[in-house]
Amino acid sequence: MNHAPHWTADPIDLLRVDDGFRLADVAPDSTPGFEGGKSAGAQALAAGVARLEELQEQLFACSRLGDERRILLVLQAMDTAGKGGIVKHVMGSVDPQGVQLASFKKPTAEELAHDFLWRIRKEAPEAGMIGVFDRSHYEDVLIARVRGLASPEEIERRYGAINDFERELTEGATTVIKVMLHISPDEQRERLRERLDRPDKHWKFNPGDIDERLLWGDYQQAYQLAFDQTATGDAPWFVIPANRKWYARLAVQHLLTDALERMELEWPKADYDVAEQQARLAAS
Amino acid sequence: MNHAPHWTADPIDLLRVDDGFRLADVAPDSTPGFEGGKSAGAQALAAGVARLEELQEQLFACSRLGDERRILLVLQAMDTAGKGGIVKHVMGSVDPQGVQLASFKKPTAEELAHDFLWRIRKEAPEAGMIGVFDRSHYEDVLIARVRGLASPEEIERRYGAINDFERELTEGATTVIKVMLHISPDEQRERLRERLDRPDKHWKFNPGDIDERLLWGDYQQAYQLAFDQTATGDAPWFVIPANRKWYARLAVQHLLTDALERMELEWPKADYDVAEQQARLAAS
Repeated sequence: MNHAPHWTADPIDLLRVDDGFRLADVAPDSTPGFEGGKSAGAQALAAGVARLEELQEQLFACSRLGDERRILLVLQAMDTAGKGGIVKHVMGSVDPQGVQLASFKKPTAEELAHDFLWRIRKEAPEAGMIGVFDRSHYEDVLIARVRGLASPEEIERRYGAINDFERELTEGATTVIKVMLHISPDEQRERLRERLDRPDKHWKFNPGDIDERLLWGDYQQAYQLAFDQTATGDAPWFVIPANRKWYARLAVQHLLTDALERMELEWPKADYDVAEQQARLAAS
Repeated sequence: MNHAPHWTADPIDLLRVDDGFRLADVAPDSTPGFEGGKSAGAQALAAGVARLEELQEQLFACSRLGDERRILLVLQAMDTAGKGGIVKHVMGSVDPQGVQLASFKKPTAEELAHDFLWRIRKEAPEAGMIGVFDRSHYEDVLIARVRGLASPEEIERRYGAINDFERELTEGATTVIKVMLHISPDEQRERLRERLDRPDKHWKFNPGDIDERLLWGDYQQAYQLAFDQTATGDAPWFVIPANRKWYARLAVQHLLTDALERMELEWPKADYDVAEQQARLAAS
């Protein structure tokens, strides 16, 4: 697909998890396909806003006339990797009426009483929408594995259930884009440190963040297993180096824009007689 | 309350529906409290974004530590008056994670099988959120009255039910702000004409929009009755002249900022020992 001229190569190809992918080989401070620095990155992000906005509006418009297509962007990452920043700075640039955001926290008692996909299915995006999952059903094979919250057999079952669920989505006109924002442990320490150093950031910190941090290697392994089991042609994973926040935002903007471009959207044709309505209006 | 220096008087006082309010006396092309034109208005809106963003983040932050407060902004208007523009340009400037948007369309069969407030209650904002209703329970005393979708006795009952419901909300830590965007019939004709003239806007037009337009006077009367019955001290109505889109956006931004300022929000104090966590982090 076409990519904007600020890319030296299509990030889709550079970031997609293909056969033989190894998470350990991805450098969290790299910027695949982009040679500029922070300010060039911010400029490129700003330059892409108008196109993404237009495409999102077309997707929404088409749904009003019966088009079933929609997008689901899944965001996964270690704490502080920048999921919130993606939501604020990439999704925040399009019309809120076209974005369906769902944040998945620790499951409630009611949620735990159901299959792990129960709460997820309820938040699947409607036609015409860009759905964003801030954490997702992948927590059920990530923290669940690392913390032993489910048996090994149940975790194995879940990979298959996830693939079935995502196949349902893609067969039902949902474009599924799965993103892992990849930071280094040192970068995370810096970001947590800032939260502890600034009183206006204290609310963002939780002592449990350090508990999870101490299991870094286990989480990386759980991510690798999840990629091995669930990176499919129709519901691909993208691992985005995220030590540089601006790069991660630019890359996600590109993934969305690319997905929308591939839909070859057009403004829907009126399902009424335009001239007749113009005459009615003039007389009113 | 304080108001930004670009206001010549506090729009809260100028726009609020008080005793003796008459909708017919409000000029849709006026800009109460603001003497500049479109470009000054756009500048003022941009200047207010950072403060609104900060306040919204504080509201959200406080909720993470148990504060129950939240805001509900109700938007009502004739077609094309600019509800969507408020959502896009005012709400779109704050973090999407702090905004809970609900659009109420024509009720479904399931919704009609319940009391009119059933679907509304489900969308009431959570603690820390700014909820926005694009249309609302007021449709059940507006179109329902104009179109005779409910008996006169049922409509009368609904005013009381609305007041009870909104009292519940305000007693439950919700700040309720109700806005009617007020345009003139001529301005609406222009805006509908644009939708018919531009193929990329055809999807926004519905022949039913003209049917409703032909009942303009009935709708104005239904609004007046709704104001008479439901403008309360705790859940006030504001009628915002909206022929000039920029003015309506600036006014809504001010209403939200003012409501948040009145909460006297502060960054929440850490509920953990900061020094202890800093030491743990450094060792990790």
